[in-house]
Amino acid sequence: MTRIRFQQSLDELKDQLLEMGGMAEQAIQRATLAYRTRDLSICELVSQGEVAINRKQREIDQAATDVLAMEQPMAVDLRFILSAIKINAELERVGDSAENISGRVRKMKKMGAAEMPVDVPRMAALASEMVRKSLQSFIDGDAESARAVLAMDDAVDAMNRAAYKALTAVMTEQGNLAPQALNALMIARALERIADHATSIAEDVIFWVQGADVRHSKSLKTAPDPHEMGAA
Amino acid sequence: MTRIRFQQSLDELKDQLLEMGGMAEQAIQRATLAYRTRDLSICELVSQGEVAINRKQREIDQAATDVLAMEQPMAVDLRFILSAIKINAELERVGDSAENISGRVRKMKKMGAAEMPVDVPRMAALASEMVRKSLQSFIDGDAESARAVLAMDDAVDAMNRAAYKALTAVMTEQGNLAPQALNALMIARALERIADHATSIAEDVIFWVQGADVRHSKSLKTAPDPHEMGAA
Repeated sequence: MTRIRFQQSLDELKDQLLEMGGMAEQAIQRATLAYRTRDLSICELVSQGEVAINRKQREIDQAATDVLAMEQPMAVDLRFILSAIKINAELERVGDSAENISGRVRKMKKMGAAEMPVDVPRMAALASEMVRKSLQSFIDGDAESARAVLAMDDAVDAMNRAAYKALTAVMTEQGNLAPQALNALMIARALERIADHATSIAEDVIFWVQGADVRHSKSLKTAPDPHEMGAA
Repeated sequence: MTRIRFQQSLDELKDQLLEMGGMAEQAIQRATLAYRTRDLSICELVSQGEVAINRKQREIDQAATDVLAMEQPMAVDLRFILSAIKINAELERVGDSAENISGRVRKMKKMGAAEMPVDVPRMAALASEMVRKSLQSFIDGDAESARAVLAMDDAVDAMNRAAYKALTAVMTEQGNLAPQALNALMIARALERIADHATSIAEDVIFWVQGADVRHSKSLKTAPDPHEMGAA
């Protein structure tokens, strides 16, 4: 494999991860919309999307493994590929969490309508932004922007704790609403978990960039220039 | 790196993973004991153990990355090392789940004692066995024993669903017990998650063995013989 061809493989891997990230974000958005509208056909879209996400994960995994198998990458590229595999797995878990939310919405649909003290759309927007930012920080090799994701996680955690407290109060005071409150609580928890996945991605980026820093301090802040790499 | 030295590195990786698996199992057992006894000093042991598990994960990750970096492994070894990295991550999440359980126990300790309709020790024993079996199936490269783990997951799922139903009933009927019931429900869920991690490991083993099957049908059912490898 020529150096240029190898670099193309890495670029393709990035593109595929971005696509995967887009699918994961769409899953969050759809699950949130399903919650807001209680529209079961949107739940169905989430489920179909999850199947597609799982398939995509296997494809990316295979592509990353193939790149590893075909060329012994130097340390900085090796770390990049291993990070890509890990991030890919985190994005797949984001899809799982979106599917969990969708499953909760299906259950809530069967129950009476009741206002629940949790701002799902706001939590979802924040979690979704974290997924997007963490992935972008990986693509850019930007540890600073990854650190910003870690700070956002505190906000989501706080929202989850507040939801937990308010929903436990509902359960305690209005037993008949306990099943709804429990489902809402599980949805908040799923969103908090999505934020955790984004956090894991961001931590991986920091670790990757710092590790790379020690070994190859040059090709960090920006993606490697294919021409330069080809000339190497 | 000689072939023998490389094989030694793989064996060391296996040993380290087994050690990690032992730590994860111990975490489950301790968390369960903490639940049964409401003994906060055992919760503390779980927390200390989680720190050790996280450290161990980084060590194994580094060791696996080093093996990849030092030698371009052939396909079957490459898949083994990538699987080791994934399984390592799953075991770390088992530690997280045990820590979650321990955190729930801390909360329950502050509440009045109340019998909850969930057999935590039995669920935990099953989940723990799944972790051990899935890891052993990886060490042995034994897809059949990995499949047995998948079957066990159905039992844990059923127990979790039963717990969910019974605990939701408690919440609905006895609002004052809702916080306890919710914590018990979260513990059941954490155990179900541990079973899911074991299932992921088992699925990885099947994928690894089958993938290896296609490419290198020989060195599958048993671990490669170091002498044979050295002679290759």
